[in-house]
Amino acid sequence: MLENIDLSRKIEKEEYKAAMPGLELKLGVLQREAIERKIPVIIVFEGWDAAGKGTLINRLILNLDPRHFKVSSALRPTEEERLRPFLWRFWIKTPAKGKMAVFDRSWYQRVLGERVNKTVKKPEWLNAYKEINALERQLADDGNVIVKFFLHISKKEQKKRFEELESNPSTAWRVTKEDWQHLQQYDEYAGAVEDMIAKTGSSHAPWTIVEAHDRRFATVKIFKTVIQALESRVQALKAGGEQTARVQVSDNNLNDVSTSILDRVDLSLSLSEEEYAAKLKKYQERIRELEHQVYMKRLPVVIVYSGWDAAGKGGNIKRLTQNMDPRGYEVIPIGAPNDLEKQHHYLWRFWKEIPKAGHMAIFDRSWYGRVMVERVEGFCTEAEWKRAYREINEFEEQLANFGAVLVKLWLHIDKEEQLRRFKERQENPYKQWKITAEDWRNREKWDLYKIAVDEMLYRTSSPHAPWTIVEANFKYYARIKALKTVVAAIERRL
Amino acid sequence: MLENIDLSRKIEKEEYKAAMPGLELKLGVLQREAIERKIPVIIVFEGWDAAGKGTLINRLILNLDPRHFKVSSALRPTEEERLRPFLWRFWIKTPAKGKMAVFDRSWYQRVLGERVNKTVKKPEWLNAYKEINALERQLADDGNVIVKFFLHISKKEQKKRFEELESNPSTAWRVTKEDWQHLQQYDEYAGAVEDMIAKTGSSHAPWTIVEAHDRRFATVKIFKTVIQALESRVQALKAGGEQTARVQVSDNNLNDVSTSILDRVDLSLSLSEEEYAAKLKKYQERIRELEHQVYMKRLPVVIVYSGWDAAGKGGNIKRLTQNMDPRGYEVIPIGAPNDLEKQHHYLWRFWKEIPKAGHMAIFDRSWYGRVMVERVEGFCTEAEWKRAYREINEFEEQLANFGAVLVKLWLHIDKEEQLRRFKERQENPYKQWKITAEDWRNREKWDLYKIAVDEMLYRTSSPHAPWTIVEANFKYYARIKALKTVVAAIERRL
Repeated sequence: MLENIDLSRKIEKEEYKAAMPGLELKLGVLQREAIERKIPVIIVFEGWDAAGKGTLINRLILNLDPRHFKVSSALRPTEEERLRPFLWRFWIKTPAKGKMAVFDRSWYQRVLGERVNKTVKKPEWLNAYKEINALERQLADDGNVIVKFFLHISKKEQKKRFEELESNPSTAWRVTKEDWQHLQQYDEYAGAVEDMIAKTGSSHAPWTIVEAHDRRFATVKIFKTVIQALESRVQALKAGGEQTARVQVSDNNLNDVSTSILDRVDLSLSLSEEEYAAKLKKYQERIRELEHQVYMKRLPVVIVYSGWDAAGKGGNIKRLTQNMDPRGYEVIPIGAPNDLEKQHHYLWRFWKEIPKAGHMAIFDRSWYGRVMVERVEGFCTEAEWKRAYREINEFEEQLANFGAVLVKLWLHIDKEEQLRRFKERQENPYKQWKITAEDWRNREKWDLYKIAVDEMLYRTSSPHAPWTIVEANFKYYARIKALKTVVAAIERRL
Repeated sequence: MLENIDLSRKIEKEEYKAAMPGLELKLGVLQREAIERKIPVIIVFEGWDAAGKGTLINRLILNLDPRHFKVSSALRPTEEERLRPFLWRFWIKTPAKGKMAVFDRSWYQRVLGERVNKTVKKPEWLNAYKEINALERQLADDGNVIVKFFLHISKKEQKKRFEELESNPSTAWRVTKEDWQHLQQYDEYAGAVEDMIAKTGSSHAPWTIVEAHDRRFATVKIFKTVIQALESRVQALKAGGEQTARVQVSDNNLNDVSTSILDRVDLSLSLSEEEYAAKLKKYQERIRELEHQVYMKRLPVVIVYSGWDAAGKGGNIKRLTQNMDPRGYEVIPIGAPNDLEKQHHYLWRFWKEIPKAGHMAIFDRSWYGRVMVERVEGFCTEAEWKRAYREINEFEEQLANFGAVLVKLWLHIDKEEQLRRFKERQENPYKQWKITAEDWRNREKWDLYKIAVDEMLYRTSSPHAPWTIVEANFKYYARIKALKTVVAAIERRL
C-alpha cells in the first residue's frame, strides 16, 4: 500500500506561514497542560533515511519548554545495551509523568532495520511484535499518550536526496555506503513497514504516516497530529477523569492532512474489446483449473470485493465465477446485519461464512463495513471502529495462519463516473432497481467515505492480506485485473 | 504450582444445604438481569478427566431459564470443523446479547489436550495463545462477561475415580484406554495448565481454579464466582453505563472459597546443625563455580526473594552470596518507590535493574509488591493490580526470551512463627531496629495478604518463571533449599 500513498501533497509557503504561529501557540499551551495534569507523552519518529527526521523533530521541539522533554536517538545498541533485552534501553527512557520523550528511531528498529538487514533472526523479530505491543499497552494503561510517525518518501526521492547531500562537500559525509545499500533494499523495507503498521497500530498507540516530500506539509501534519492527541487527552481528563482517559475524540481536524491512497489511482486505465475478450477467455479457463487444484490441495480461498456504489462489483464477480464449478465456490452477499446478527459481535456473521478448506468464498461486501459505512453513518461508536482495524488484522491473520489465500479488492471509480452510472441507472428502466435514495445519500458523503477508505487501505494491508486497488472507471479493465489478481494469488500458493 | 493447591478443602453438608438456596435464587435473579440488560455471558469449563465437569455444569444450569442458555461440548472436531480454523467452531457458538453460552471444554483444548497429545505442533499451539487472547479480548470489548473454570483434582484422586467408575458395571464404559493414558501424562498436562493460566489470565477473562475433590465445595465456588461476575457487571452498568462495564468490583465475597497454595506448605521441615553446615559448604562452593560459568557463558540470572515480614530473607540472601565474587552479582533491596520512581510505570525501576548478560541480580523484594502490599494497602487501584498479573507475566517472559534464568522464592512462615520472631526482635536490643510499628500493622492484615499471595503464586507461575515455596519456619532448612534451588536452576541451563 505504501507505494500508493499520494506523496505529491504540499502546502504553499503563504498558507504555511499563516498556519504555523497558531499551531505553535496551541502546542505550547498543550504542553503546559500536559505538565500540569501530569500526562506522560511519547512521540516516536520512524521513517526512511533522509526523510527528514532530524529537521522535523527540531521543528517540533523548537517551541517546547526544554525542561520537560528529552530527545533520544536510537543508534546501534552499545555493548552495555546489547547485554540486555532489546527493550531495556527504551524502557529506561520512558517519560516521567508530565514529561515528553521523543524517540528518533525507536524499538521499531527491531522489526525494520534489524529485520531487513537480518541482524536478528525471524523468530526474534516476530516475537518482538508481541513485546512491543505489550510495552505500548502497559504504558498506555499507565496514562501515556503515544504518538507514532512514519516519515514516508519514495525510492526516487530518497535517491535524489542522497545525491544532493553527496554533491555538497559540507554534507557529503552524511551519506554512507550503508545508506546506498538501504536504497537497494527499499522494497523489502517497505514490506516490513506495512507489516509493522498492520501489527502494531492500535487506538492507544496509532501510527500516522507523514507524506514527507514537502517539508511544510510534513511539519503541519506532525504538529496537527500531536496537538490532536494531546487535546483529546486533556479534554477526556477534563470531562471524566481517569476512566475515560484513553478514549480519543474524533480527529476531524486532521482531515486536510490525512493520508490518501486513492488520490494516486490511475483511473484512465482501460482495455479494448478485443483485448478484453481474449484475456477474459484465458483467465476464466485458468481459474477453473485452479478451482480444481484448490479443491485437491484443500486450500481455503477468501476473496473480498469492496468498492464504491456502482463501481461494478456485481458484474465483476459474475465474470470471475462464470466458468467456475458451482460446487467449489460460494458468493456471499453482505447487506445490513439482521436482528440475530446484530445481537452478536460484528465478526460473528463472517466467521460463520468461512469456507471449508478446498473451497472459495467470494464476499460481495464484507467485514470492512465496520470501518466504512458503520463508521461514516455512526452505526457504531468511534471506539468500536477504531479497535476494528486491529480486530480485522487479527481475523485475517488467523485465516492466513490456517493457510487461506486472501484476496482483497477495492474497486475504485471517481465521483464523476459514479454520477454518470447513477444517472444511467435512473434512466434505464431495466436498471432502475439498482439505484435507491440511499445511494444518493451516500454519495453526498463521498469525502467522508474517502477518508475512511484511505485509512482502511493503509491500516489493514499486510503481507498475508494485501489490498489490491482495481481501477474501475473502465469495466473491461477492472474485470480482467480482478481475475488476474485472483489467479496470481492462488498460483503463488500452489 | 498446581501441585501445591490445597485440595483438602470441603464444605459440610449442613453448611451446603444452608447456603445453596440463597445462591440459586441470586443466580436466577442475575440471569434475568443479564437478559434484560442484554449482557452476553460465556462460561468455560476445563479440567481433568473425571473432575466432575458434567455434574457441575448440570448443577449450575438447573435453576436457569433454559430458553436463554446453551451448553456446548467440545468433542474432537468433526470433519466439517477440521476444515476450518480451530476457533471457528467456537466463534459460531458465541452467545447473542442476553444469552449465556456454557462450554464443556473449549478452545483451550488446543493448548491442553492437543498440545500434550501432540496432535498439533508447537508453533501451532504457541500461536493459539495469541488467537485465544484475541478472541477473548474481542468478545470482552463487545460486552461479553467471560468466566473460566479449571476443575482441579490430584493424580491420586483421578486414579481413584477411574477405578471407582470401572468397578461399577453401569459406569465402566465411561473409562477409556485414553483416560488411563491421560493419567500417565498427568504431570505434563499440569505443566500445560500452568502455562495456560499464566498466558491467558486477564482481568476481562480471568481463570478460577476450582478445588474439585469435594463436590459441595466446588459447587459453591462455581456459583459464587458466576454470581460475582454477573453482579459486578450489572452494578457497573447501573452505575455508569457502558464506559465502566469492564471494571470489576472487588471479589471479597469469594475469599472463603479462594484458592490456597499456602495452606499446603509443610512448615515442619528442618535440618540439623551438622547437616546444615555440610550442605552449606557444598552449595556455597558450587554457586561460586557456577557464578564463574554464568559469566563465561554470558547468562543473565535474576533471583527474586519474597516472603512474609521476618521470614528471614536477609539472612538467606547472605548465605547465598557469602562465598560469591562480588563483581558478578548485585543485591537490589526494594523498598517503597521514591518520588522519581512514582512518576513512572511501576515496572520502570525494575527494568532499570535488569542485570547484564553474565551477571546475577538478587532482588530483596521485587515487582511483586504491586500485587501484594500495593494491592492490600490500596496504594494502587483494583484495575491496576488486576492487570499487573499479565504485565508481570509479560515482563518475565521477555526476560526468559532474552535467555535469563529466573528463580522466584517465596519464604513462607506461619503466623505463630512470625509472632515469635517479632517478639524476639523486640526483646533483643541488637535486633530492635528490625521491627517497626508497620510490621505489626501488616501482621494484622495477615489474612488479606494471604489471599493476595495465594493469587500471586498461581497466576504468575509459568514454566519459564516458576515459583518455589521455601518452607522457612526453620532457617537452616530454608537457606539450604534456596541455595539448592538457585544451583539447580542454573545447572539446568548450563
